[in-house]
Amino acid sequence: MAGKEEVAFLGPIASYTHQAALTHFPSPHYTVVPQTTIADVFAAVQSGSVSQGVVPFENSSNGSVIFTLDLFADLAGRNPEILVCGEVYLGVHHCLLGHSAAPEGQDGTDRTTAEDVSGVSSPKKSRAKPLRDLKHITKLYSHHQAWGQCNDFLTTHLNGIERIDVSSTSKAAEIVRQDDSGCSAAISSRMAGELNGLEFLAENLEDNEGNSTRFLVLRRRDDRISRPDESAGEADGEAETDDEHARYKTLVSFTVRHNEPGDLAGCLAVFQKYGLNLTSINSRPSNEATWHYIFFVEIMGRKRHVGSGAVNQALKGLDGVAQSWRWLGSWENALKA
Amino acid sequence: MAGKEEVAFLGPIASYTHQAALTHFPSPHYTVVPQTTIADVFAAVQSGSVSQGVVPFENSSNGSVIFTLDLFADLAGRNPEILVCGEVYLGVHHCLLGHSAAPEGQDGTDRTTAEDVSGVSSPKKSRAKPLRDLKHITKLYSHHQAWGQCNDFLTTHLNGIERIDVSSTSKAAEIVRQDDSGCSAAISSRMAGELNGLEFLAENLEDNEGNSTRFLVLRRRDDRISRPDESAGEADGEAETDDEHARYKTLVSFTVRHNEPGDLAGCLAVFQKYGLNLTSINSRPSNEATWHYIFFVEIMGRKRHVGSGAVNQALKGLDGVAQSWRWLGSWENALKA
Repeated sequence: MAGKEEVAFLGPIASYTHQAALTHFPSPHYTVVPQTTIADVFAAVQSGSVSQGVVPFENSSNGSVIFTLDLFADLAGRNPEILVCGEVYLGVHHCLLGHSAAPEGQDGTDRTTAEDVSGVSSPKKSRAKPLRDLKHITKLYSHHQAWGQCNDFLTTHLNGIERIDVSSTSKAAEIVRQDDSGCSAAISSRMAGELNGLEFLAENLEDNEGNSTRFLVLRRRDDRISRPDESAGEADGEAETDDEHARYKTLVSFTVRHNEPGDLAGCLAVFQKYGLNLTSINSRPSNEATWHYIFFVEIMGRKRHVGSGAVNQALKGLDGVAQSWRWLGSWENALKA
Repeated sequence: MAGKEEVAFLGPIASYTHQAALTHFPSPHYTVVPQTTIADVFAAVQSGSVSQGVVPFENSSNGSVIFTLDLFADLAGRNPEILVCGEVYLGVHHCLLGHSAAPEGQDGTDRTTAEDVSGVSSPKKSRAKPLRDLKHITKLYSHHQAWGQCNDFLTTHLNGIERIDVSSTSKAAEIVRQDDSGCSAAISSRMAGELNGLEFLAENLEDNEGNSTRFLVLRRRDDRISRPDESAGEADGEAETDDEHARYKTLVSFTVRHNEPGDLAGCLAVFQKYGLNLTSINSRPSNEATWHYIFFVEIMGRKRHVGSGAVNQALKGLDGVAQSWRWLGSWENALKA
C-alpha cells in the first residue's frame, strides 16, 4: 500500500486504548489518531476517514464495555459497514502518579485507616506497597472503572480520600500535573506518568495481577487491506480443521421475536448444531420495545469468504429462527491458551 | 403472623427502589428500612436482620444492574442464603426539580442550543416540554443512569449545562433543596420532589415512554413466610401445565470449565432439553481466573418443592455439564404479556 494508514483510537494520548493501538499498529507504518468517544472511533471508521479503529471491549475484572456493545447493536443504523478484524489483549497496570512532597502546611491528616472501615467484611491486604509517603495526598483523580480495580490498595493506603471521576485515566494524570498544590494524585498508566513528568508514588495498584483489557480492531466491510493468512486454507471444498476453529473468533448479534422466549434457545441451538463453541454471551436492551433484548455471542471459528464452513452454515441457520442477525466480523484469536 | 415485618430496600428515602418496596410491601403491614448500598440490602437479608429486601435488577433502557449481578455471583461466599422470591416492575418517570426563579444577576446565559451540537447526528426532539423557564439553571444533579435516559430532553433544553453525578436521584433532590442560589436542578422522582418541597420544572423527561425498572425481592432460603399459591398444583406426580410455566420465573447462575468453551453451549442445551424457555442471559467476570465468566440465565417455570418438574430436572442435568451452578430462586412472573 502506498500511503501511511491512519488508525483511530479512543483517546486521549496515553490512554490504555492508545497503548493497545500502538501494539497492533506500530509506527512508522501507521499514524494513530485520538478520538474523544468510542462513538467517534466507530464514526471515523464508518465514514472512511481512517482505515481502522481500536476500541475497548471488555475488562477481565469489570466486564463488558456496554458503550461498545451498544455501538455494535447499532439501533440507529449509523454503523452498518463496521466489522471487527482483530483483537489486542493488554495487561492493565495502574500507577499512583503525583508529586512526592507537598508544600508545607498541606499535610493530609485525619486519614481514616483500613481498620476504621465498617463494611461487610475486612478488605484484602493490598499486594502493592507505596514507593513514597502518601500522607500529603488529599484528592484522587481517575476513570471510574479504575477505582474498582484498585480496591485493596485504596482501602489499605488511601482510605477516605476524596475521589474524583474524570473521563479517562490519562486525563487524570494531566489534571494532577496542572495542580500546583501537590496534594492530588492520579491512578493512571505508566505511559501517562512519563508523558506528564509525574512521580511514581506506587505501581501495580490493581487487586488482580491478571487485570487486562481486550480491545477490538474495527474496519470497514469493503476495505481493501490485505491481511496475511485471512483466506489461508479455505478454498472451496477444503474441510475445516480443529486448528482453524481454535485460531479464529467470530462475533454475531441477533434479536428474537418479542414474547417468543423459546426463540433464544433456538438461536443458541443453531451454533451447537454446527459444533461451534460459544465463548461468551451478552445482552443489551434493544430499545425496539420494553424488555426486548439484542444478544451478542462470540464463537470460535470464522466465516469463510468462500465455501461452506460451520460458521457460514450457522449464520444461514439463524435465518429461520432469529428475528434479525448480523455478522460482526471474524478475526484471529490473540489469546494464547 | 404476629410481628410487623421489616423489609430492607436500596435507599435513600424516595429512591425508585423505595417506591418499588412500598408497592410490594404496603404499610401498615410492613416497615421498609433504607440501606446505603445494594450490598447492604443483601447483607441485611442474609443476616436475618430483616425478613426481605428489594434491589434494582435491570432497567429497560440501561440494561442490567451489574452490582446486583455481582452480589448474586457471590464470589466471596457472603450471601449463600439469598433467594429471589418476587419481582416488581415500576415505570420510571423523571422530573426536573428545582426553583422557578433565580435571584437577580444569576441568569445562566451563554446557553448552547441543540443546534450547536456537533455530534454524529442531530438529537431527537424531546417529548417533554418545560413547565417553567429554565434559563437560570446552571447546574444539574442526578444519578449517572438518569442522564442517558433523558438524553433528548437534556440536549434540547439544557444542552451544555454542567452535570454532577451523585449517589442517587433522591440525593440529587436533597442537594438542590439545600442550594440557596436557586440555579441548580435535579433529575429525580415525583416522590423526591414532593418530599423536598421542590418545584416541578418539567415532567416525564425520559426519552422512552416505556422506561421502567425491574426490582427483585430477596428472602432467606430458610424463612418461614407463607406465600399464597407457592406450592399450588405441585403435588408429586401432578403434571406441569403451560400455565404453570408462564406464571413463574427462575434465576440460575453457573460457571463452566476454563478452556472448555463447548461447556457453555452444553449448559444452555440442558434447559432446551426440558423445554424451558430462556428469557435472558447475562455474564460477568467470575474473577476465578482471567477471562473466566459466571453466567446468569432466567427461565420461565419454577423449581418445585416436591416432585420432578422440568426446572428440577434441568438443574439436575446441569450437574453433569456445569463446573458449578446455583438456583437463585423461583417467583411469580409480574409482567403481564
